[in-house]
Parts: sequence; structure tokens; C-alpha cells
Amino acid sequence: MHSNIRELELVVKEIADEMAQRADRGEVASYIPELACIDSGHFGIVVIDADGLIAAAGDCDVPFSIQSISKVFTLTLALGKVGNRLWRHVGREPSGSPFNSIVQLERERGVPRNPFINAGAIAVTDQILSGHQPKEALGEILRFMQFLAGDDSIMIDEKVAASEQRTGFRNVALTNYMKSFGVIENPVDFTLGVYFHHCAISMSCRQLAMAGRFLAHSGINPSTGHTVVQAERARRINALMLTCGHYDGSGEFAYRVGLPGKSGVGGGILAVAPGKASIAVWAPGLDANGNSHLGRIALEALTKRMGWSIFGA
Amino acid sequence: MHSNIRELELVVKEIADEMAQRADRGEVASYIPELACIDSGHFGIVVIDADGLIAAAGDCDVPFSIQSISKVFTLTLALGKVGNRLWRHVGREPSGSPFNSIVQLERERGVPRNPFINAGAIAVTDQILSGHQPKEALGEILRFMQFLAGDDSIMIDEKVAASEQRTGFRNVALTNYMKSFGVIENPVDFTLGVYFHHCAISMSCRQLAMAGRFLAHSGINPSTGHTVVQAERARRINALMLTCGHYDGSGEFAYRVGLPGKSGVGGGILAVAPGKASIAVWAPGLDANGNSHLGRIALEALTKRMGWSIFGA
Amino acid sequence: MHSNIRELELVVKEIADEMAQRADRGEVASYIPELACIDSGHFGIVVIDADGLIAAAGDCDVPFSIQSISKVFTLTLALGKVGNRLWRHVGREPSGSPFNSIVQLERERGVPRNPFINAGAIAVTDQILSGHQPKEALGEILRFMQFLAGDDSIMIDEKVAASEQRTGFRNVALTNYMKSFGVIENPVDFTLGVYFHHCAISMSCRQLAMAGRFLAHSGINPSTGHTVVQAERARRINALMLTCGHYDGSGEFAYRVGLPGKSGVGGGILAVAPGKASIAVWAPGLDANGNSHLGRIALEALTKRMGWSIFGA
Amino acid sequence: MHSNIRELELVVKEIADEMAQRADRGEVASYIPELACIDSGHFGIVVIDADGLIAAAGDCDVPFSIQSISKVFTLTLALGKVGNRLWRHVGREPSGSPFNSIVQLERERGVPRNPFINAGAIAVTDQILSGHQPKEALGEILRFMQFLAGDDSIMIDEKVAASEQRTGFRNVALTNYMKSFGVIENPVDFTLGVYFHHCAISMSCRQLAMAGRFLAHSGINPSTGHTVVQAERARRINALMLTCGHYDGSGEFAYRVGLPGKSGVGGGILAVAPGKASIAVWAPGLDANGNSHLGRIALEALTKRMGWSIFGA
Repeated sequence: MHSNIRELELVVKEIADEMAQRADRGEVASYIPELACIDSGHFGIVVIDADGLIAAAGDCDVPFSIQSISKVFTLTLALGKVGNRLWRHVGREPSGSPFNSIVQLERERGVPRNPFINAGAIAVTDQILSGHQPKEALGEILRFMQFLAGDDSIMIDEKVAASEQRTGFRNVALTNYMKSFGVIENPVDFTLGVYFHHCAISMSCRQLAMAGRFLAHSGINPSTGHTVVQAERARRINALMLTCGHYDGSGEFAYRVGLPGKSGVGGGILAVAPGKASIAVWAPGLDANGNSHLGRIALEALTKRMGWSIFGA
Repeated sequence: MHSNIRELELVVKEIADEMAQRADRGEVASYIPELACIDSGHFGIVVIDADGLIAAAGDCDVPFSIQSISKVFTLTLALGKVGNRLWRHVGREPSGSPFNSIVQLERERGVPRNPFINAGAIAVTDQILSGHQPKEALGEILRFMQFLAGDDSIMIDEKVAASEQRTGFRNVALTNYMKSFGVIENPVDFTLGVYFHHCAISMSCRQLAMAGRFLAHSGINPSTGHTVVQAERARRINALMLTCGHYDGSGEFAYRVGLPGKSGVGGGILAVAPGKASIAVWAPGLDANGNSHLGRIALEALTKRMGWSIFGA
Repeated sequence: MHSNIRELELVVKEIADEMAQRADRGEVASYIPELACIDSGHFGIVVIDADGLIAAAGDCDVPFSIQSISKVFTLTLALGKVGNRLWRHVGREPSGSPFNSIVQLERERGVPRNPFINAGAIAVTDQILSGHQPKEALGEILRFMQFLAGDDSIMIDEKVAASEQRTGFRNVALTNYMKSFGVIENPVDFTLGVYFHHCAISMSCRQLAMAGRFLAHSGINPSTGHTVVQAERARRINALMLTCGHYDGSGEFAYRVGLPGKSGVGGGILAVAPGKASIAVWAPGLDANGNSHLGRIALEALTKRMGWSIFGA
Repeated sequence: MHSNIRELELVVKEIADEMAQRADRGEVASYIPELACIDSGHFGIVVIDADGLIAAAGDCDVPFSIQSISKVFTLTLALGKVGNRLWRHVGREPSGSPFNSIVQLERERGVPRNPFINAGAIAVTDQILSGHQPKEALGEILRFMQFLAGDDSIMIDEKVAASEQRTGFRNVALTNYMKSFGVIENPVDFTLGVYFHHCAISMSCRQLAMAGRFLAHSGINPSTGHTVVQAERARRINALMLTCGHYDGSGEFAYRVGLPGKSGVGGGILAVAPGKASIAVWAPGLDANGNSHLGRIALEALTKRMGWSIFGA
């Protein structure tokens, strides 16, 4: 069942080489000014197998803005705090709309479709906040990330957070809209302050792949032996990543890659091969759906060569 | 990797007993008159493991109308005939809408979101038909089903087909709408005639589980050794079932059951545990999304007890 | 209160001259093959004042396909037959959508927003048909037009009707969709047959302006002294023309022209200056909303110069 | 052409009596706390004819919150300041949606459909503000109202403004949403501050009818002889009131009343009979579309008895 680490290292190296040579690199996200200046030439990949062996290549230790990938971890944290009551504030279905659509909210009385579209992730953040000060909630989220990755050096990039806060009118709109239906419980600026900041966490592929290990291994982080969540919860978070993790490109990601994964507009993707590996890739150029263009291609190559698709050998 | 057949038989028996006793049985589909009179007391389940061993319980040999489950097989057939050109006529993303919604078609110029909503399945049927007479196309579909199940006795229930044809105004609307955008190539009544008839195929759980084996085993039917499709295609069909197989309840099915599956309003569900088993359940009562209520609950129990979720142990 | 006919003749002549010289003529409707070949150089205008005096210019006696203008007359006829029961099948609000949108029907359970979008006019036609043979209903509509215009030579252009019937997939979609909600009572092909044929009525500006006189004069046709409808009903039909008569350009028409009016994709517009005049213009080129481009401009000039806007001097 | 003032006084008195006796009074708006406590028993009406003669009855001198009626006056003011450039920020078509819908904004890239839905009125307010301090803009609006009504005692009800500001999350959402598309130019809280305050202006029917006179008389206030706007602009504002002045009940209002009018959730309606009269009614109970229930019924009776419909005698 365990992969041969030599084979894996070879595959990872090959993929990094192939990605370095490709001319089609997608477009770097422009709507957050601080992200717009990232060089689309970057590519990094880290795979950690069930034994904790690490195959890494490219810019695997360069920190990048994890953006929406943080939503996987805030979802995990919120479920730990409020349990299934969370589902009163957010659904579990793919949205069939772009990541920042407000149309669906009108049709469904302010309850966002899933925790991975912006509105849903904001509602999840609101549940983590529940009555506390933004600073405390944010500290809790950051410490959770550090704990999962086993690395206290993980930080929030304040420039990115400020940049997003200045221009995030659509997220302000979404949050006020949900607030008008009673879905958001804290003051809008508190909730959004925490949201913008946790999206601005900076991590490298290595840190991210480490933080995702509990999802690949029944809720347990094999590096530390800590139970992060029960096995059933890990499976369910994986299911949500599969159906909703790539906005309106989720079907395509499942079809091509065949792994649960969550992308961010910073160009990162965290993917999970249950029982086999935790994977992080980074390539800043995005496709039309806002997902890392080369990241997806690299993951497709990886699952194919390793036979890791959850949909069959 | 192979399940212990004794354990599996025990689990299947237990589940059938539990389902028999439940009072909450959902509502039998009423919009097709011929289906409205089915007794919601039925429950059947068949699981066929990798070795071809069969665990069955309840009404496992009673034929029922497979309805939308046929869409998995017409998709397979159409991909075999036209290959990736099929994707010019239908997308691969969850719809975020009920199974018979027409709104999405207007937004996306007549191209349905995926092959499992009604509009998408009609577009797929249209590609199978491509220029032939309806009778020939229908014969081809039926023979494909018989071949996959290894059972020549599988038939179309003409009463159900006629019933649907008389009342299927919404499907006529969807098809004409796609035709107005050039997505449908054959005469509307030809395409719909074939569609209504293949939805009216009658099969038992045993026949259905047999027909689905190639999806669980890398495109090969282990009973016969025939390669039905390449392994990659089998994986991709499974991915589509996971993200889109239960209409606007697909996220929920993935979250709770954790297997690729396709439901029909006749109350059947075909589910696939890649590498492990092909599964068919039947319970005629439906939930609010039009999926078998007890069927889903039974599959949730099965994957949990057998540890078969694709999202982790 | 009555206009000086000399002044009116002068204004009409001037406008026809101006329109003849304009280079911007819009695009002739292409979706009905038989209409696509009409020369966009045509322009005709007829104004009939309260005393029955006629000012005419340009191609005022050339018959053209009245298309959606027929909806004003079928609405009048249907209200005469079923009275306010008609409003169970169609609403009275502007649609906020293009003329052939199906989205609104899904949101409002198959009841079209008003009698002038396609779906609404089809529902109105269905009420005229109510149980009769298509031929009879069509005969009734045609005789009503001939009676109103005082001209038995008005005919249906069978080529246009056949052309529309062959390509009108979207209307077939709309009608089946309404049928699925029970809004349509007759067989779809009966209702659509009548609809396509009454849209294919051919009339000249002179005939059309004559037929519209009852709307300008409290329900009475001053040419004949016949009461066509009660005064209140004439006012209400005018109100519907004002708010809904130009699809998603109705607000613009009210803003610029300031008269109740109904356009057709054949390039005609019937407009009503209550108490003052019945007006018909024809210019085949259309604007982006499917309304006659020069027709609207001519009417704007006419109301301005004559001081006929219903919104003030 | 001028009404007999005796007849008018009689009609107005009769209508007020009839309204006082009706049991069906609609529901007082509950979403703004300060408005929720108004007694639905109130009814006031004032009609000012072309000669300046006044027919009044009921609570005609009780000030009420004019709410959305203020949008007519801010539109007038904004057109005076920025002219037709205003139409880059707002459209002129009926919306086909409730007054606070956000769906349309997504479809049309942040440009609201017309100046009378909330989003549109906020965009208009933003143009009045253009770079100034909220206090100055608000002062300008208030002075304009006082000037039109010839009454310096007109005030803003600060309690209502504060109440709305505290609970108006949906308007905050709409404004931020438009801001994300660049449609809003000033800081969101500046624009909304002015918007909430001008909606909170308190006026009696007498003051409101006086302020609306310029719309009935070609842009000139006959009381003072001042030209407020050119005649064409007055006609166009009337046209917008007719097509868009009652949200998703605009078609119904045109159909039944036959006058340009603008309603507010405070229960007031300003209506204009071009060339004949300026009319204000007040009855706090609303219908399902958020328009004054008895206000509409009273206006329907008035136009019918006076023969004032713009759609014919």
C-alpha cells in the first residue's frame, strides 16, 4: 500500500521539470494588488507519504499566500468548536456559480451553499469568532495552523491582509447580505477582519503538505500521533473538498485529478490521497475558474503516475 | 484488500433488516403515473465484491424502473462512440440546481452542465442516436445493458415509457430549448423517444450491480474479463457520478456515503467502491432531492461498516 | 384638442424624409428565415387623428409581418372571451428579461409575467383556442383584425408561419414548460400553430393604424362607431403596452417616446396617443432589444413635435 | 381642461370616507423598527389642481416618513447636477424583481436597472454626493425639498435615519457590491449615510403634493413660477415613475391607477396627473409588493372618478 519513496521522488522531480518548461502558466490573480506582482515562473511541490517520507521539488520552501486553502483549516476548527450546528449557517452542496456569486444567497435566504465559496467561508469564520475579539480568534486560527504543520514560524502577511481589506467590497457585500438574513452573528467588520487575515497566512508547500496530513490519515497527524479530528470527520472534509474545493471547476478537478483538493488564488493547492499522501503544489498562474493552472496539471500527472486516484486504479 | 464475504453477507443482511423496520420511507415519485403506484415497502440490496462473490438481501430480484441510472450507461456508450467530442454538447460540473432546471441552460447557451441532469442526459442520448433511427439506437442501448449484466432478459417497460412520454412536458421543453441553441442534432421526438425508453429499462438490483462491475474494476468486467472502457475512462465516469450523480443532493451523498453513485426516481441507486465492489440498492421512497431515501441511508451504513469510503478509512 | 391635420401632415412628411436619409437602420431580424430577406431601406408611417383624418408617408401601404403586434389584438380578443380569468394564466408586470427568456417561468411556476413576452402571448392564444380547432381560432383572430381595420383583404403569410414553425424551438420549449405547470390547457401543437399563424399576419401601416383606433378612443372605433371594448379595458390595454410593450426596452420607449406602443420583430410599431391618434410605423431594422430602430426614433420625433406624450406637455 | 374644484373636493372627501371604513388596511412595514409602530388607521389625501386649488381630507397634515418617495427628488437633483452622465451609473428599465434584489446587479455588472429600486437610488445619491461631505449633500437635498414644497419646516427624522442605519445590512450589501464594480464613487458609508437620511425626511401629504407640482406642469412649479426642470425632463421623470415607481407592482399600478407615481414603505404615494394635478396620499399599511394598500385603492378611485388616467378617458 505504501508508495516506494524512490519512485515517488523520481515522479515529483520529473513533474517539476516538466512544469518548469511549460509556456502556458495561467494568469496571476490581479484583484488583490499585493498578489498581482508575484512571478508566474514559480513552481513548487511537496508530497509526504504515509510513512512521513517527503518528496519535494522546485520552490518548495518559498512561502506564498494560501488564501482560500485556509478555508479547509477554519472549517476543521469550526466543526471542532460548534459541531454540526455549523450546518445551520452553511450548506454542503456544490454551488454551480463562481466563487464570489451573490445570486445563490438570494435564492436560499442568505445561507451559502458550502464552506469553500467565499460567503460560506465567511460564515464559518463567523462561527469561530462567536463573541470573541477578532485578535483572539485570529490567534487561535494561526496557532492551529502552526500546530498542524509543526512549525511556529508560520505568519500572517499583514500587507496582503490590508490589501484585501481595502479592495474586498464584494466580500463586504456578501457578509452584509448574510447578516441581513441573520446568518452572520458577529459585527461584519469583526468577521471580515478575521477572514481577510486568515486568508493572508503565508506558507510554503512543505508547511502546507505537513498541515494536511491528518486529512490523509483518518484524522490523525502521523508525524505527532495527535488525533486532530475523528476519522469520520476527516472523510467528510475530504468529501467537501472533492465536490466543492475548486469553485466552479470542482467537477473538472475531480474528473482530471481524482483527489480531494482545495485551491487558493495565491496559486496553491492542497490535495489529499487518502491513506497514501498529503500533497501541496504552488504555481501562481490561474485558470479561468481561479484555480492554479500548472498546479492542477501537476496533480493530474502525479495521480496518474502513482495510481492514486480515489476513483480507481 | 478483498472483503471477507462472510462479513459482507452479515452486514448486508443487517442493513436489509434495519431498512425493513424503518417508518421513514420517503415519498414514491408521483410525476410519472406508472411509478406512482409502487409500494414504498420494498427494499433490495446486492453487493458484488472483487472476486465476484455476491451478498444479497430483500427484494434483490424484483425488477424496477432504473430511470436516471441508465444515464451512467448511455454516457459510457456515447463516450465509446464519439469520444471527447461529447463534451462539446455537455459539461462536467455540478449544476447547483434541481434535476430539471432550465435556468442554467439559458445562462450557458443551451449546453447542460453535466451528463446526469435531465438536459445533459438528453444531449448524451442525442449523440448516441446521431443520424440513426430511434429503434436502432434503443436496441443498441438495451443490448449494451444486457451485455454488461450478462443477462438477455433485461427489457424496457413500455408502459412506463409511454407514461413518461405523455407527461414529460418539461423534458420536451428542455430538449427544444437546447435544439434552439444547436446543441441537439436529431429531431426532438427521435431523441426524446430514445431517452424516455432507456429511462424505462427494468432491472433488478442483482442485474444492476452486475452491470456496474466494470466501473469498480478499472473498466474491466471481471465476470467476463471484457474490457468495457479504458481504466482512465472508468475513473472519470466515477468522478462524474461522485460530483453530479445525485442532482442537488450530490454534495450530501458524497459527504455521507463517500462513494460514486447514481440514483433514479424509481428508487434505485448504483454505487461503486473502486477496487472493492459494485453495489445496487432499491427503495422506492424518495427524499426532497428526488433520491432514494432509504437507499442512501443503507449505503451510508454499508460504507461505514465496511470501511469503503473513497475519502479514507 | 384635435390636431391641425395640415400641421400633422407636415410633421409626418418631415419625419419620413429624415428617416429615409439616416444611415443607422438597425439589423433586420434574422432568426425567422422569411423575414431575414426584407430590405432595411423601407420606412412607412400612418397617423390617424381623432377625426379620422389620415397623415401618411413612405411605404405606408406595403404589407409587412406584424409579428408581436398581433399580441395586442389577441389580448383584446381573449379578454372579451374569458374576462379577468385570463389573469390566472398570465401576469401584468414588466419582465426585466429578453422576450424569449425561460428563467422567469421557472421562478414563477410557469406563469408568464405579461401578455406581451412570447410565453405570455402563447398563454393568451391558448385561452382563445380553449377547446376549439386551431383553424376556427385562427379564423376568429383574422376576422377580428379585418373587422377592426375595416379591411377584408388582410391575410396570413403562410410562408412566414411555416418558416417560424420550422425554427421556433424556443417557443416550443416555452409552451411545453408552461404545459408542465398546467398553465397551457390545449395540445401544445394546437396552441403554437395558432400562435405562429397570428404572428404571421401581414398588414400595412394604414391597416394597422386603423385597427388600433379603438385603443386611442375609449374602446370605440370612431370610423364605425362600434364599441370594441369598454373604456376601462382600452385604458388597461394601453397601460400594459406602456409598461411591457417593448420587451426589455419598454422603459426606454416610455422614457423617449412617452406613448403606449407595441413592437414586432418585423419592424412595425403600433402606438396610441389616447384621445388624439392611432399611429403605425414600419422600419425593418431592429435595435439590440428587438424593437424597430428607426420606428422608435420616428415616434420620438412625432410625439415631441406634436406634444403628444402622455407624460405632460 | 381644469377640474371643477367643487367636484374634486367632493370626490376627495368621499374617497377619504370610504378608506376610513375599510377593514383591509395592509401591513405596516416592520423591517425598520421606527416605522413598525405607526398606526395603520391613518389615511390622508391632498390634491392640488392646475390652478393651485387644494382638495384635502383625512390626516393630510400629519408628517410621515416619505422613504422611497424621496428618490423622485434625488433623481431630479442628480440630473440637474450631472445631466445624462447619470445614466452611466443607473439604467431606465423596470427590474422584474423585488426592491432590494441583488441578483440583477450580478447579471448586469453592478449597474442597477433604474433609479427607483434601492440600488439605483443609492447610485443616484452617490452622484449627488460626488466628492462633497455627507452633511453638505444632505443639506442640499433637504433645501431642495423645502424649496419645492415652499416650506422651510420640512425636517429629517433622525430616529428613523438611525433606525435604518442600524438594520440596513442589505443596503450596505448592495452598495458594496456596486462599489466592487466601480459604480459607486464615494466611500460606502458616506453615500449610505446620505441615502438613509434623505429616506427619513418627514412630510405631510400637503407638503408632498406641493413639492410634486413641477412634475404635473411641464417642469414649472405654478405656485412660484420657478422652472425646476425643462419640460422634457419632467416628462421623462414621469415616464420612469410610471414604469418603475412601484417596484414589482409597477405594472399593476399602471394597469389600475393609470398615473405616474412613486410609493414609499412609510405608506405614502406621490402621483402625477400631467397637466391636471399633483396628488399625495398616505395610508401606512402595505401590500405584498411594499406599496401602500389603501393608497393605491384611493388613487384608483380618484383617477376613475375624475377621468384622469393618462391612458385615455
